[in-house]
Amino acid sequence: MTNETNNASVEGDKKLSKKELNKLAKQQKKAEKKAEYAAEQAKENEKLLNEEDISSGLYGIYGLIQSAERKTLNFVDVKDVVLELNGQEIWVRGRLHTSRVKGKTCFIIIRQRTYSVQGMLFVGKQISRNMLKFVANISKESIIDVRGVVKEVEQKVSSCTQKEVELHVTELFVVSAAEPRLPLQIEDAARLKVEEKNEEESSLSVVNLDTRLDNRVLDLRTQTSHAIFSIQDGICELFRNTLKKRGFLEIHTPKIISAASEGGANVFEVSYFKGSAYLAQSPQLYKQMAIAADFDKVFTIGAVFRAEDSNTHRHLTEFVGLDVEMAFKFHYHEVVETIGAVFVDIFKGLQSNFQHEIETVGKQYPCEPFQFIEPTLILKYPAAVKLLQENGVEIGDEDDLSTPVEKFLGRLVKEKYHTDFYVLDRYPLAVRPFYTMPDANDSKYSNSYDMFMRGEEILSGAQRIHDPSLLIERAKHHQIDLQKIQAYIDSFKYGCPPHAGGGIGLERVTMLYLGLGNVRLASLFPRDPKRLTP
Amino acid sequence: MTNETNNASVEGDKKLSKKELNKLAKQQKKAEKKAEYAAEQAKENEKLLNEEDISSGLYGIYGLIQSAERKTLNFVDVKDVVLELNGQEIWVRGRLHTSRVKGKTCFIIIRQRTYSVQGMLFVGKQISRNMLKFVANISKESIIDVRGVVKEVEQKVSSCTQKEVELHVTELFVVSAAEPRLPLQIEDAARLKVEEKNEEESSLSVVNLDTRLDNRVLDLRTQTSHAIFSIQDGICELFRNTLKKRGFLEIHTPKIISAASEGGANVFEVSYFKGSAYLAQSPQLYKQMAIAADFDKVFTIGAVFRAEDSNTHRHLTEFVGLDVEMAFKFHYHEVVETIGAVFVDIFKGLQSNFQHEIETVGKQYPCEPFQFIEPTLILKYPAAVKLLQENGVEIGDEDDLSTPVEKFLGRLVKEKYHTDFYVLDRYPLAVRPFYTMPDANDSKYSNSYDMFMRGEEILSGAQRIHDPSLLIERAKHHQIDLQKIQAYIDSFKYGCPPHAGGGIGLERVTMLYLGLGNVRLASLFPRDPKRLTP
Repeated sequence: MTNETNNASVEGDKKLSKKELNKLAKQQKKAEKKAEYAAEQAKENEKLLNEEDISSGLYGIYGLIQSAERKTLNFVDVKDVVLELNGQEIWVRGRLHTSRVKGKTCFIIIRQRTYSVQGMLFVGKQISRNMLKFVANISKESIIDVRGVVKEVEQKVSSCTQKEVELHVTELFVVSAAEPRLPLQIEDAARLKVEEKNEEESSLSVVNLDTRLDNRVLDLRTQTSHAIFSIQDGICELFRNTLKKRGFLEIHTPKIISAASEGGANVFEVSYFKGSAYLAQSPQLYKQMAIAADFDKVFTIGAVFRAEDSNTHRHLTEFVGLDVEMAFKFHYHEVVETIGAVFVDIFKGLQSNFQHEIETVGKQYPCEPFQFIEPTLILKYPAAVKLLQENGVEIGDEDDLSTPVEKFLGRLVKEKYHTDFYVLDRYPLAVRPFYTMPDANDSKYSNSYDMFMRGEEILSGAQRIHDPSLLIERAKHHQIDLQKIQAYIDSFKYGCPPHAGGGIGLERVTMLYLGLGNVRLASLFPRDPKRLTP
Repeated sequence: MTNETNNASVEGDKKLSKKELNKLAKQQKKAEKKAEYAAEQAKENEKLLNEEDISSGLYGIYGLIQSAERKTLNFVDVKDVVLELNGQEIWVRGRLHTSRVKGKTCFIIIRQRTYSVQGMLFVGKQISRNMLKFVANISKESIIDVRGVVKEVEQKVSSCTQKEVELHVTELFVVSAAEPRLPLQIEDAARLKVEEKNEEESSLSVVNLDTRLDNRVLDLRTQTSHAIFSIQDGICELFRNTLKKRGFLEIHTPKIISAASEGGANVFEVSYFKGSAYLAQSPQLYKQMAIAADFDKVFTIGAVFRAEDSNTHRHLTEFVGLDVEMAFKFHYHEVVETIGAVFVDIFKGLQSNFQHEIETVGKQYPCEPFQFIEPTLILKYPAAVKLLQENGVEIGDEDDLSTPVEKFLGRLVKEKYHTDFYVLDRYPLAVRPFYTMPDANDSKYSNSYDMFMRGEEILSGAQRIHDPSLLIERAKHHQIDLQKIQAYIDSFKYGCPPHAGGGIGLERVTMLYLGLGNVRLASLFPRDPKRLTP
């Protein structure tokens, strides 16, 4: 999907490329210009020092805020600086996004998360030349306290989210200064993705994903990042709320486990005092034990670890799992329908509560709005295979789907059923793990399912075998060492209701809902085989 | 607090103690009796086989529920089997908790989480002798489907939570059979804790904590366990809801980190592909980076790892951290008061929504109700030291508090202020980590705090230093290798608002609120230096 995938930072020395040499030359020129400018400024400053400062006390740098005193100022969030406040004097604390002097006027943009407002200082009765100069010299990304009067503007402010008003600044203080040289510019990190593709032609600076992730604290300040993580928070909240409404209990399962839960591969080993242990690849066993312990319907949100050396746009070594497990009465579709309805609730909630954030992300990552239908489409595996065959894919009835075929199927389903979300049900038994319940009527198939968003898998689940003897039989068939899964088998010896569940990758859901193209953008501090920092 | 702490299971052979020999002898006697009984039963069965069975088709064992068909029966939760349903015929799916035959009548108790109801079968027009026999022979802990008519009882059913009604059984099927021999009896695991202390005198069987934890799936079935984890779920939900209401965003921070976040000690090492990594001892750095990235107010709920070889009632090697971090305007008390109010909201919510569960736990772990005041008491460190000194504790002004002294202080505070929850504020700078902001007016002290429940620490927090140069100065003072924390220091180079926060241990809050005496009881599958299973 993106060309940013395999560029994880490699430590150590390396020769400078032509591009880097150019960059250095540019930087040097900049530094020279800066020095020239500084000299001019020094002269100017001398002049200013001889004037009386009418703004004295109304601007400056706070000392380190060490909680020496409590102050109650009338702070307003940038989001709320709207026409209704016209004429009112307020305080705002935000980032100095940009500043620009034009004669006796200084325009600043104050940024706060996904919102921004323009501030204006005009040298005159209230604002001294000194103050203007001070403001103009504050380094970008510094945190500032601004007092000002909200004024309706005649012409809409195109560069800010708050377009109807600006702030006529009366006081301005630096709360925390940023170093003048930033490793990346916020605007560059927030630039429309399609522009990156035309890197050669564009004069606009481009920040590649690795630089962005290396300087994640700055990269996260973009309006896009803030919108992404607001939406991600929304997904978790909607997931939990809809499950709670349905009687689910939230549990917490251990991440450190004594044996690799799903076979030995792809598991991280941990030194555990004098012995060793592993990091859980999924909470599945523990969710199932909770069901065997009568918790009936459970979910858990937590870190899941995969020691898979996959450097793709959709793999992380650590991700957030949204896991559900549910006892059912007679048919696992009771569970499939519940999970389907949970997703529909999430999509509806995002649609109605996060329009501003979805639009914000769309400016950098344009994408068709996410489509879904209700109730969720449940497509049987054989029907999917037939659909693929009809469209020229050579695939056998019991073959697994490759990732490209899954994507193609997603497109076919979208065409036919007008949905970006669907369930693929009743996978061939042979392609599923040993604990999957075989289909009652046709043992070639199984009571298992994957769920897809925009053609990519975001959930894998099944009815689990809750009968110890069948579990042993199936494990033997898969040539699994029974000793290693004895504890797992034993969990079902003392009565266990039939149950099914599944695990969802939070970052994938976020990526696919928003069409981000890379799962790393949906992880605050992503981890992959090549990235452990920051 | 308890004598259960250091008995973690040790593998390998060991000689049998006298107690164990006695146990074996008892078991043998039981087995003999059982065999005798089985022989009698066989004779009886022969007789029954010759009778016509009027209940034929109304009882039996379901085949393995493999989702062959969907059935919609009128299932009711045991919780809802109350007087209002008098006369109605319903289905219940639950555990067979106990069964007892008395002449032609069989009494069963059906258990579902924290609720239980009595079922009754009487040999007569509807129930055959065969059916009664079948029911009487179902092994305890099997899952059964029971159809019956709800009937008001004349005398309250003392052995069940549903005391006003019983179920006159008309059909009964086994959904999932338990093995007849259980490694522990649910009643024994749920026995009042004080009885354990009189083990020698009591004829009642006692299950020690290790046996319970070894067989956690059974142990978790007790009404006490179900109530504990409902309350724990409630704590998380209340924590989240009150923070969301206050504008906090939920984030997810990585657990695998490249360097030990809080010094090198007590950290688990992980093999990470060809290199190595560590498990995060706290999400603090990442919460702070989120603040530096303008997220303003964040919280995170997730696994926290401590490689501390502490075998006490209150230490786990993996626990669930409820972490908050918040930018403030001028004084860190803005944050302290917010966290205090969050706890008050949690306590109030538990009090009003979990009375049934609190009472259920109280039956096994009797405890004084949790007291708190509003607003939360914020006690200054010097005042606490004075209070201790007045009560005979020899302690210097800048000494740290030992665990026993903390507990004693908790008792003094309770006496004086009538609260089990309070904040101890303004700790001596010397006893806090390097990143703690010194007090503005007295550099012997710091802008840091702990919070306590029933005299035990459940939160540690502080205003963090957000200024890189002061951070370097303090790190040097603590003789910390600056290179190792460079990334941490760098996070604050590009402007960062003043901020404070803290981390809460979920299991400790649960334990202390309910007075459980051991943190393992508040962890679904606890991890300590000696326990990695189940």
